[in-house]
Amino acid sequence: MSELFAFGMGVATVNAAGEPLDIWFPAPLKPVDAAAEAAIAGAVGEFGAGRRVGSVRGDAAAALAAEIEAAGGAPAAHQMLAELDCPLVAVALEADAPIRSTAEAYLKLHLLSHRLARPNTLNLDGLFEHMPTVAWTSAGPIDPQELPRRIAAARASGAPLTVHGVDKFPRMTDYVVPSGVRIADASRVRLGAYLGDGTTVMHEGFLNFNAGALGPNMVEGRVSQGVVLGANTDLGGSASTMGTLSGGGQIVISIGERCLIGANAGCGIPLGDRCTIEAGLYITAGAVVQVLDEAGAVVRTVKARELAGQSDMLFIRHSGSGAVQCRTNRAAIALNPKLHVHN
Amino acid sequence: MSELFAFGMGVATVNAAGEPLDIWFPAPLKPVDAAAEAAIAGAVGEFGAGRRVGSVRGDAAAALAAEIEAAGGAPAAHQMLAELDCPLVAVALEADAPIRSTAEAYLKLHLLSHRLARPNTLNLDGLFEHMPTVAWTSAGPIDPQELPRRIAAARASGAPLTVHGVDKFPRMTDYVVPSGVRIADASRVRLGAYLGDGTTVMHEGFLNFNAGALGPNMVEGRVSQGVVLGANTDLGGSASTMGTLSGGGQIVISIGERCLIGANAGCGIPLGDRCTIEAGLYITAGAVVQVLDEAGAVVRTVKARELAGQSDMLFIRHSGSGAVQCRTNRAAIALNPKLHVHN
Amino acid sequence: MSELFAFGMGVATVNAAGEPLDIWFPAPLKPVDAAAEAAIAGAVGEFGAGRRVGSVRGDAAAALAAEIEAAGGAPAAHQMLAELDCPLVAVALEADAPIRSTAEAYLKLHLLSHRLARPNTLNLDGLFEHMPTVAWTSAGPIDPQELPRRIAAARASGAPLTVHGVDKFPRMTDYVVPSGVRIADASRVRLGAYLGDGTTVMHEGFLNFNAGALGPNMVEGRVSQGVVLGANTDLGGSASTMGTLSGGGQIVISIGERCLIGANAGCGIPLGDRCTIEAGLYITAGAVVQVLDEAGAVVRTVKARELAGQSDMLFIRHSGSGAVQCRTNRAAIALNPKLHVHN
Repeated sequence: MSELFAFGMGVATVNAAGEPLDIWFPAPLKPVDAAAEAAIAGAVGEFGAGRRVGSVRGDAAAALAAEIEAAGGAPAAHQMLAELDCPLVAVALEADAPIRSTAEAYLKLHLLSHRLARPNTLNLDGLFEHMPTVAWTSAGPIDPQELPRRIAAARASGAPLTVHGVDKFPRMTDYVVPSGVRIADASRVRLGAYLGDGTTVMHEGFLNFNAGALGPNMVEGRVSQGVVLGANTDLGGSASTMGTLSGGGQIVISIGERCLIGANAGCGIPLGDRCTIEAGLYITAGAVVQVLDEAGAVVRTVKARELAGQSDMLFIRHSGSGAVQCRTNRAAIALNPKLHVHN
Repeated sequence: MSELFAFGMGVATVNAAGEPLDIWFPAPLKPVDAAAEAAIAGAVGEFGAGRRVGSVRGDAAAALAAEIEAAGGAPAAHQMLAELDCPLVAVALEADAPIRSTAEAYLKLHLLSHRLARPNTLNLDGLFEHMPTVAWTSAGPIDPQELPRRIAAARASGAPLTVHGVDKFPRMTDYVVPSGVRIADASRVRLGAYLGDGTTVMHEGFLNFNAGALGPNMVEGRVSQGVVLGANTDLGGSASTMGTLSGGGQIVISIGERCLIGANAGCGIPLGDRCTIEAGLYITAGAVVQVLDEAGAVVRTVKARELAGQSDMLFIRHSGSGAVQCRTNRAAIALNPKLHVHN
Repeated sequence: MSELFAFGMGVATVNAAGEPLDIWFPAPLKPVDAAAEAAIAGAVGEFGAGRRVGSVRGDAAAALAAEIEAAGGAPAAHQMLAELDCPLVAVALEADAPIRSTAEAYLKLHLLSHRLARPNTLNLDGLFEHMPTVAWTSAGPIDPQELPRRIAAARASGAPLTVHGVDKFPRMTDYVVPSGVRIADASRVRLGAYLGDGTTVMHEGFLNFNAGALGPNMVEGRVSQGVVLGANTDLGGSASTMGTLSGGGQIVISIGERCLIGANAGCGIPLGDRCTIEAGLYITAGAVVQVLDEAGAVVRTVKARELAGQSDMLFIRHSGSGAVQCRTNRAAIALNPKLHVHN
């Protein structure tokens, strides 16, 4: 392995002032093979002292692509770039330092979605500041300042623009479609989400950047920034996982393997494996929970946060007394195998 | 009527290997008029012994279209196909047998969305296996294997692709828009959904394939696979109906006429007519419910599944005791007539 | 100021019969400057007695645009229109009267989204009747009657149509992107929504027409028609605000400043400032609520509607007794400042 933390070569969309709106990295590298690093070193030497990001043009891009290919890195993808006949952006990160540019921000989001880094393992300081707000349209990324004129021109041409969003983060699938996943409504998975093999995101599912479903998973609810679902866990329709960015607390939520968070339920504490929250019940960290023994007797009463990270819990609200209760979970979750076939 | 169960003539999108990604059937036939069957028999004779699916080209397609028209079947639609000047796919089903091909799968989904078959009346065995996973893009259906190269080419041409989903099922409205419906966000209604006349699906509404709203309905919640809503029933925002594919049980849910499932509520049992579930309450099959008489006295306590299919029930969670209760429902639901005007 | 209530000049998409499907007004005027009014009067004089809507062509459009510019009104936008070289629609409203045409309907929706009128301040009588149902597609607005033929033609050309919705109301961002907002999934904000500066609408957020977030706000839930959120209020994921169109009551809901409606919660009464509803709790107007004093003792029991409009309330469902309770709210909501940076 090399001294480089990560490398990417990609294509940017720019606004009228030449500022990048987005960058597509078809085959980022992490870790970076030592042979590839030697090829990269020459290109990076041209960027200027201390710079991580540079432009690579024409023959130099083709040569770099060929050298990386020769070193074993993602040949088809780099061949594609060399054929594009447009200036390329190269980013070489020596360390996982705070983000200083739009190109670095996009590279890190690609690393997550390409499964080269798991959520909560990358330094994302500076991310928001370096993600420009972009109008994501049927004609590609557009600077919001330039949008009215583009709308007018498109109408005049008889092909009106559709604006799919005005946001810092694009949808993942316009940049990366990981193997073995299905995503019913791609507008609900941001670039920077981590989707493991065998994961299905239904229409109501959502994954933020730096959020993950390690796979296989059935995701019909919302995976907030920082939240990770373990294998064979099922997040029901409209189920909520409490994030830390807005409205939530300071605890980063993770949910273990073989859990079932019911439809319209919510989870405000980390869970271990084989846990269930019944449909419609929201477990906040401060909820007072009756813990029952196997005979169904209340053995203690605790705040939910004291149960954080434990396995084999079943949470319900007793339909007679209205009390939130935690029992030992004995129900197995069998994901329907047909839903997980990918052909 | 004829011996044929159903017939469709349509246009396929294919991948680089010539395999179908989708098929659009503008005017499927079920039942098949005996005169049309005679016209079809000749074409089907060419398919080969035992085959249900074949290709029809050029003059043969035009002749078949003309003969079906002469027999009274959907003239405008078949005229359109004949004018397309491309190979057509014809599917002739002698019986409602298990699905053996992508063309058959798409034909059956079209039958549902064209209101030629109600949910739960078709044999859908083999459906998942024969629906390829497709990238649904602004440039049409693309094989996920071919996507990176198409993304590169689109970027080079200055018109980046938008990938709307990567899924087995496409959105219905790209194939069928039934009369008298409004669908605010078409990404949330799958091909194979059944929408009756006068149905409005708001932004939060969702209908899976083989799910239905018989109409008129206001759908602001999720209609899971196999679930059917009766006339004048209102499914509130984010309301959940429990399905059988994932996370749900084995009972197929149907909801009768003039019901109101409140916002953020959920339903895990079949309901008769004129039932209400209050906003925010999830009735699972296993919930213990106090049944009240007209005087408000608890007359018995049952599991919700014992109430399955009954009419005139009002479910609430008592806001003082926290108990789930079932009362006789006397509130009428008046859908706002202006919301149901289609002009 | 002038006698005119509002004025707009825009571009329509029309169906095969020449009827308008939508109208884009890039820079509507309200109030109308007296100098601009003089310029407009001449054009309006051509419409015919009593008519509010007319067509302006060629040199007349350019002259009117120039005169409005000279009067100080939105020069860039009108210059754009003059350059479009297509017939323009002009609407001059003398008063805020009931809507009599599609052009007037679209102008009023634009006034809301351009922040020229707040929700619930415009006369929207006649709105539904004058909004045609349109197929909103990747090729622009299409009359649903004309859709099958357009789908066929698009397939034949190798670029299949995507139908984003079939609805009376288009998405706002195809017409107006107000300054300082982010909208993650534009399909969930209708034209006619009012989004104040600093508002972020996440993927699960929704704003209907004549609904507002005065800004800054974090909107991850549904703002129903007529509902308005005050500054610094946070609407959690899938949170519901009860509307008056369907399924809701007759009370128009407003939510004051610095409120927090938790994820999967719901609000069926107007709230003052600094109120919180805990995640997962739906407060309907008829819910019986225990009101607690600062010592935690129940001081009275009321229906939630009796608390309408009060400030500093914290609503929870007691996790032991299941009772819905209202306490004095002391928790401050600190919106994450990085989420509100717009660069």
